[in-house]
Amino acid sequence: MTKILALVKQNAALDHLRAELPAGVQLLTTDQATTADLAQVDIIYGWDAVGQQLVAQADNQVKWVQTISAGVDSLPLAQLQQQHVLLSNTSGIHAEGIAESVLGMLLMHVRGLQVAAVQQTKAQWHKPEHQQLTRLQGKKMLIYGTGHVGQRIAELATAVGMQTSGVNRSGHSAANFMHTYAMAEAQTVAAEADVIVNIMPLTAATKHFFNADFFNQLQRQPIFVNVGRGPSVDTTALLAALQQRQVGFAALDVFEKEPLPADHPLWQQDNVLLMPHLAGIFDGYMRAANQIFLTNLQQFLTNGELKQNQVNLSQGY
Amino acid sequence: MTKILALVKQNAALDHLRAELPAGVQLLTTDQATTADLAQVDIIYGWDAVGQQLVAQADNQVKWVQTISAGVDSLPLAQLQQQHVLLSNTSGIHAEGIAESVLGMLLMHVRGLQVAAVQQTKAQWHKPEHQQLTRLQGKKMLIYGTGHVGQRIAELATAVGMQTSGVNRSGHSAANFMHTYAMAEAQTVAAEADVIVNIMPLTAATKHFFNADFFNQLQRQPIFVNVGRGPSVDTTALLAALQQRQVGFAALDVFEKEPLPADHPLWQQDNVLLMPHLAGIFDGYMRAANQIFLTNLQQFLTNGELKQNQVNLSQGY
Repeated sequence: MTKILALVKQNAALDHLRAELPAGVQLLTTDQATTADLAQVDIIYGWDAVGQQLVAQADNQVKWVQTISAGVDSLPLAQLQQQHVLLSNTSGIHAEGIAESVLGMLLMHVRGLQVAAVQQTKAQWHKPEHQQLTRLQGKKMLIYGTGHVGQRIAELATAVGMQTSGVNRSGHSAANFMHTYAMAEAQTVAAEADVIVNIMPLTAATKHFFNADFFNQLQRQPIFVNVGRGPSVDTTALLAALQQRQVGFAALDVFEKEPLPADHPLWQQDNVLLMPHLAGIFDGYMRAANQIFLTNLQQFLTNGELKQNQVNLSQGY
Repeated sequence: MTKILALVKQNAALDHLRAELPAGVQLLTTDQATTADLAQVDIIYGWDAVGQQLVAQADNQVKWVQTISAGVDSLPLAQLQQQHVLLSNTSGIHAEGIAESVLGMLLMHVRGLQVAAVQQTKAQWHKPEHQQLTRLQGKKMLIYGTGHVGQRIAELATAVGMQTSGVNRSGHSAANFMHTYAMAEAQTVAAEADVIVNIMPLTAATKHFFNADFFNQLQRQPIFVNVGRGPSVDTTALLAALQQRQVGFAALDVFEKEPLPADHPLWQQDNVLLMPHLAGIFDGYMRAANQIFLTNLQQFLTNGELKQNQVNLSQGY
């Protein structure tokens, strides 16, 4: 009997998953699993503190963790590597939702929709002057991260007439980008960008990459968008840059600490859009995650390997 | 001396226009024009109550009105026709701004950005459940009006993966639409649409076109977007449809009465986005309007005709 511990919400999508499992496979939720069960878990689907505790136990039998997130920075990667545990994520299923969210957040700002939506709550009608609104068409966008999500953001940005460049570790080319640059060489392009988007994974190389030095070089009071990981941004430095208008506006979906504390000074800034980590969420999310899991499960049961979305535990993505 | 009466805001764009006028042409604002000047005005640029009064005078000399709007429904079209006054609008310069605004309003709703932006004003963090957010990708859009603006909306909608059909008077084909239908034949398609957009001009045929009969036929609780003209919608019927959820959500930029009165019940609805007629506004608007005016002025001074954007006074657009 192969035992799966499901660390995901118990809802209709989980029922559907259970119905599609092959014979000889048992899926248990935290509520259902006894201590004896936990010691025999082969596979973890999802992730939380229970998973953390389980893989920390010396006698655990876990061989594979399938997350329902793209980012795996909250998992003990070194420990998994040491225990020869396979890890896979759901990278790819977020692309469309995040790309639509980025485009929506940008349009909300340049078209005056955020300001008007807040005025709507007070039944206030203030028609903007022509010079108060701009358009995305013709603006220069620089995207840090050129994987699935970055490529789809670039595709939508191009469709609205933006000039779109990308940044990745080596500067290799990627679909939908006019130009791509290596991280170390992108300073000049960043300084001239109207819109800067972060969608990089969180690794040692990207932690606090967007710091005071980064923001100080900016020339065009750009819009800064973070839909990647919160700790890629030095929040204190970003706050200063927003106050001094080196960054004209920030649209943030992820934060160093989530939920963003109610007393955090970002809430008081007038040039921000603060979203509760929703960019990748959509109604078919768990069905899409289940599909990746089932595909990998079939392969895993055959030969102990994964078919897709395996994470390189050294690189962290 | 050819006299132009400028009924537009006095700003830098008007100074630029004045600097580019050919010799023998005088541009006067309402402040500058004497009664004697008014009696000699050949051309009106812009429109307001002063223009209305001027063309109503029996001995006026007006030969051409160039509006700075696309819609001309507020002008006395029959009177202009009777007096053989030429009329031109600025149709075309709004397309990009309106298309970006429509896409922004739709993304704001389906991606949960409007709700979160309002919560931001209270420093509240509520992460939505997966089933609360959808994506535009795969949804069916039906656009009433297949001119410049409708075509650009369709192009952007297609880029985000929507299936886009259009409606016009005859059902003639138009760029960027998968299918087009005549107004009288579009009922079935409207009933099945996820998103319905109005960008038609206001004429006798379109006044209160979106009425109780229209809303009653809808099957999919669609999003209804009005970026055309307010009076194309029977607001009372729309309000009822929103309350009964025949219309799931309405994103409205134009209204039967503008500004929307502070006590209007629409402000109290929770399934609306109410914008202060801003969809077409952008920082280069008056420069673009001036360009149309100057092109037409050159032609008008040569042979009394207009080169572009002439309105058919019988059709009203």
